[in-house]
Amino acid sequence: MTGLFITLEGGDGSGKSTQARLLTEWLEGQGRSVLRTREPGGTDVGVEIREIVLHHRGEIAPRAEALLYAADRAHHIATKVRPALVRGETVIQDRYLDSSVAYQGAGRVLERGEVRDLSLWAAEGLLPDLTILLDLDETVARGRLDADNKRFDRLEAEKNEFHARVRSAFLDLAAAEPARFLVVDAAAPVDTIAEAIRARVATLL
Amino acid sequence: MTGLFITLEGGDGSGKSTQARLLTEWLEGQGRSVLRTREPGGTDVGVEIREIVLHHRGEIAPRAEALLYAADRAHHIATKVRPALVRGETVIQDRYLDSSVAYQGAGRVLERGEVRDLSLWAAEGLLPDLTILLDLDETVARGRLDADNKRFDRLEAEKNEFHARVRSAFLDLAAAEPARFLVVDAAAPVDTIAEAIRARVATLL
Repeated sequence: MTGLFITLEGGDGSGKSTQARLLTEWLEGQGRSVLRTREPGGTDVGVEIREIVLHHRGEIAPRAEALLYAADRAHHIATKVRPALVRGETVIQDRYLDSSVAYQGAGRVLERGEVRDLSLWAAEGLLPDLTILLDLDETVARGRLDADNKRFDRLEAEKNEFHARVRSAFLDLAAAEPARFLVVDAAAPVDTIAEAIRARVATLL
Repeated sequence: MTGLFITLEGGDGSGKSTQARLLTEWLEGQGRSVLRTREPGGTDVGVEIREIVLHHRGEIAPRAEALLYAADRAHHIATKVRPALVRGETVIQDRYLDSSVAYQGAGRVLERGEVRDLSLWAAEGLLPDLTILLDLDETVARGRLDADNKRFDRLEAEKNEFHARVRSAFLDLAAAEPARFLVVDAAAPVDTIAEAIRARVATLL
């Protein structure tokens, strides 16, 4: 495959969408063909799967949920991402296997290694060329989301501990694969972050 | 767990539903509590998953399909089968992991061992106490289905080769685990088959 596969990871409110857009614009400005996509829900099948996970009444068994996300991934990678990479395009993707490992592992029900193996089986072993981790203190992230009125409910306080575990899991993953990861401080100004990302991506072009 | 987990396997048209009903009636006649269930689609989540697999327009990537079936299994076993077994009930289930291995393996896209590992991860390692394989020559099975007007289309001829591979895969699985399997000739009279099944089940009660 001749394309470039770049993923963005981090908690909600860390600015992944903004940075994905800025990076896409920068690359397209250089005449490169870019596929900007996301998981979960990056395909029509994925949207149907996401509907089950998000809107099913009652609990879904933890392994069933992990398998549904893996099914979404398998279809997305096989039908959309891999063909784009084969065509030589740059794929910029919001969330990938590190999110599965960090979130499902932080839920403490499933082992991180199991979740990673499941994801890699789903994706036939596809790993990103670069993963950008937008690292943000969880209380700052929650504050941003509250300010945006995106989230506010009585469970927020309890959730902070969960989000701290997610952040810690992301940092562990980055430390384990330093060559694949670029960790940026998501509390920095948007332009500063965008510049750091462009500098790193430029080395891969 | 104190319950008994019995699965029925075999191709379409081999008589699984009839034998599941007769076995259920016999066990209930002895005062036993029986859960009769099926995969895929044995739960509400499973019905939604089945809807995606059967009615999605266009192809679903093979690994995505395998993961969707595994998700159905994970939820069904965790929320319905395992609790019944813990309560001491007898579970009689139409299709389980051997179907996944035989059908997906016979499709020749995925390795049988991978499909089995995925199923066992989904089900947290739960294997049946007894698996009844209703073995039937595929041309006899197709004839039965045609006679019932259940199936008739231009692909039937091509499908015969596929069903021959499925049958062969089921027989391989039975040969590999003789203690778990009871193989019966599904071309025999219904009552003869039912009697053979009751005789084997009686040894487990």
